[in-house]
Amino acid sequence: MTEESAQKSAEKLLPEELRDAWSVLDTQERVDGFRLLTPSQGEEFFESLASVEQLELLRAFPPSERRLWVRVLAPDDAADLVQLADEHERAEFLSVLDEMNRREVTALLAYSEDDAGGLMSPRYARVRPEMSVDEAILYLRKQAAAQLETIYYGYVLDRQQKLLGVVSFRDLFRAKGQASISDIMKKDVVSVPETMDQEAVGRIFAEHDLIALPVVDSEARMKGIVTADDIVDVVQEEATEDIQKLGGTAALEAPYLDVSVFGMIKKRAIWLIILFLGEMFTITAMARYEHSIDKVAFLASFVPLIISSGGNSGSQASTLVIRAMALGEVRLRDWWRVMRRELLTGLSLGLILGTIGLLRIALGAAGSTTYGAFATEFGLTVAISLVGVVLWGALVGSMLPIVLSKLRLDPASASAPLVATLCDVTGLLIYFNAAHYFLARALQA
Amino acid sequence: MTEESAQKSAEKLLPEELRDAWSVLDTQERVDGFRLLTPSQGEEFFESLASVEQLELLRAFPPSERRLWVRVLAPDDAADLVQLADEHERAEFLSVLDEMNRREVTALLAYSEDDAGGLMSPRYARVRPEMSVDEAILYLRKQAAAQLETIYYGYVLDRQQKLLGVVSFRDLFRAKGQASISDIMKKDVVSVPETMDQEAVGRIFAEHDLIALPVVDSEARMKGIVTADDIVDVVQEEATEDIQKLGGTAALEAPYLDVSVFGMIKKRAIWLIILFLGEMFTITAMARYEHSIDKVAFLASFVPLIISSGGNSGSQASTLVIRAMALGEVRLRDWWRVMRRELLTGLSLGLILGTIGLLRIALGAAGSTTYGAFATEFGLTVAISLVGVVLWGALVGSMLPIVLSKLRLDPASASAPLVATLCDVTGLLIYFNAAHYFLARALQA
Repeated sequence: MTEESAQKSAEKLLPEELRDAWSVLDTQERVDGFRLLTPSQGEEFFESLASVEQLELLRAFPPSERRLWVRVLAPDDAADLVQLADEHERAEFLSVLDEMNRREVTALLAYSEDDAGGLMSPRYARVRPEMSVDEAILYLRKQAAAQLETIYYGYVLDRQQKLLGVVSFRDLFRAKGQASISDIMKKDVVSVPETMDQEAVGRIFAEHDLIALPVVDSEARMKGIVTADDIVDVVQEEATEDIQKLGGTAALEAPYLDVSVFGMIKKRAIWLIILFLGEMFTITAMARYEHSIDKVAFLASFVPLIISSGGNSGSQASTLVIRAMALGEVRLRDWWRVMRRELLTGLSLGLILGTIGLLRIALGAAGSTTYGAFATEFGLTVAISLVGVVLWGALVGSMLPIVLSKLRLDPASASAPLVATLCDVTGLLIYFNAAHYFLARALQA
Repeated sequence: MTEESAQKSAEKLLPEELRDAWSVLDTQERVDGFRLLTPSQGEEFFESLASVEQLELLRAFPPSERRLWVRVLAPDDAADLVQLADEHERAEFLSVLDEMNRREVTALLAYSEDDAGGLMSPRYARVRPEMSVDEAILYLRKQAAAQLETIYYGYVLDRQQKLLGVVSFRDLFRAKGQASISDIMKKDVVSVPETMDQEAVGRIFAEHDLIALPVVDSEARMKGIVTADDIVDVVQEEATEDIQKLGGTAALEAPYLDVSVFGMIKKRAIWLIILFLGEMFTITAMARYEHSIDKVAFLASFVPLIISSGGNSGSQASTLVIRAMALGEVRLRDWWRVMRRELLTGLSLGLILGTIGLLRIALGAAGSTTYGAFATEFGLTVAISLVGVVLWGALVGSMLPIVLSKLRLDPASASAPLVATLCDVTGLLIYFNAAHYFLARALQA
């Protein structure tokens, strides 16, 4: 257990234990546990909770306590909380904030929670280009004493709040005291627009290895900073959502053990029913070939093998392409390169499985009369079908996420089960058509 | 396109475009593009590349240029590079570093790349508890001028290098100049042992919302810091690995479009073959029931529907449990809680699908003679089988990751295709046994 092996001092035992037990506690137990913490432990613990858990505690608190803890939150976290709250709670939460805080929170509420603007903190450290390093350090000390949440970089702004450059503390601290900020600042600043989606912001963090990114409006005026600690959460969340969709579930939006059994059933039933209805086409397809199965009984026994091979090949392709799209490695305009690769890959994989299938039938036919006089023809049927379904699976699996994305739907909806279902129906068609071609003689007998 | 909508200054266009085109360029084009950058752009660009790409460029450079760029890297990045390099390259890379750098890189090489020790930078800012705030700021300015990579927190160490506390810049800057560090430092520091796995370090970052975590040895002596920018990469990578495994592929370890077609085939063929061999048991199972299919032909037509429903239910359960384990939400000791939930969920989902299946057969039987005199019996067979396979899928899917983890294997290996394959064989057994029970009369006819 990771948290247990982390170094702990005596004071830290309690919050760690509470965190550990959190998911099995009911609301009252959470409140009781939380109240056992010292004020400074409580503050850190409260800040580390997800907004939905903060809200749960606040609702259980009497008004005076509620006021206290709402005020602890930084403006971006307070805005997340207010966004989750009911109408009347919103008014209450906003009313307990001081004037400056309330203005900031209200400004943040205008952004969608998943945008850069919804993630950012408006309390960044600012300096002026004409300041000397010594003056800047004094100025930063003054800002810190007032209201700064975090200082990682000093942002150099002109009088219109336009972002001119950035100084890191390393550069600020290593420069001579008399040097001018405009001389030591870095001018090519990577910044993000306030409307950028948080997943894209996460990619920019990963690409540039930064601790904080400035957020600017359409006129390059600085609005706030997004910090890497918030992005770690975003990247985790986005990956979790994608993984859950890939597995063929709606995104849970809460830890597995915290979702009620009824909630879990709802999240899973929707997709399971859609897949089930889709898979019903296999009944029709199978019924259409009932006559063939009647004539050549061993045809039926290879159905699961053939269709599942297409599904597996499709699951692989869709998962790889979906993840590559989420990481920005594959874009819509790359579709032809992806298709070419999957054609080659699918064909090769199909040939490999086809060969194994052929060997299996050769071995099966050797010591028995399972396939009667048609072992060769049946071997060809199976081998060609495998090449077809594996290739088809790779193409469907790789192109479906791209098509969904083109239609502005989430590519991650092309889940492994969905692709497998699509491949099942087509797999049957490929297989029975191959059988009709190679086994024509047996089927007419 | 996210990078294009980001605000850009004229100087930044070039590196962004190079980054954009990177994946479609061959080595020589990458080198040529890189050489067009200004020295400061080049430095930032080189630092932002993955170690494997840095190595690719270095190998294409003449020795003098190679030396230049190796020296640009921070010790932790240099260590990652050296770890990837060949025997003779290692010696070359280490030899171009200055004495202090070489010592640091060599120390970092002792750690596994995936441990906290392999991620950390030894260049953190340190202060002494007895210093005043003014002295600490002066001391930090001296350290910055020498060799600091990053300053986010000042770590308070005693003479044995034991970690006593931490001061954030906010606290340092907002305190009075005469205050003592030991008075303003935060004493309950969250730290991680040098051997902690990077995935666990990522979880601690996400839980505590920190920008940097101190790494300590078994005697609580400070060894370095891990920063959130590195963790964003780690979290992305770990999620990518898990997603690829969940799709039934070996982890790619490079961007999708950068993997050669042959490499891609290798990564996918292994699992595809294993799944194919596993799925072959369905041939045996189907053959065993050939007699039943001969007697009651419509039995065969529901085979794909039944077995895929078990597979879909299993994919959902395994994906949810694997992600929950990766996030630390579900641990080994929670297995019984998971099992109980999945029993209930699986049973409910099975009843839903079973009901739909029953309706489908009722509708199918209404206007036709498809099921002869046995529509009711067949309806029961299908409904009961669906309850059985969906429940079984949920149990196998949720327990397999836990069992794998207990055996110290990667739970993410319980991929959607693997679980589906396991459920196919058992699904057939459930279905045909139900048929033998309910359709006994028809099968003996």
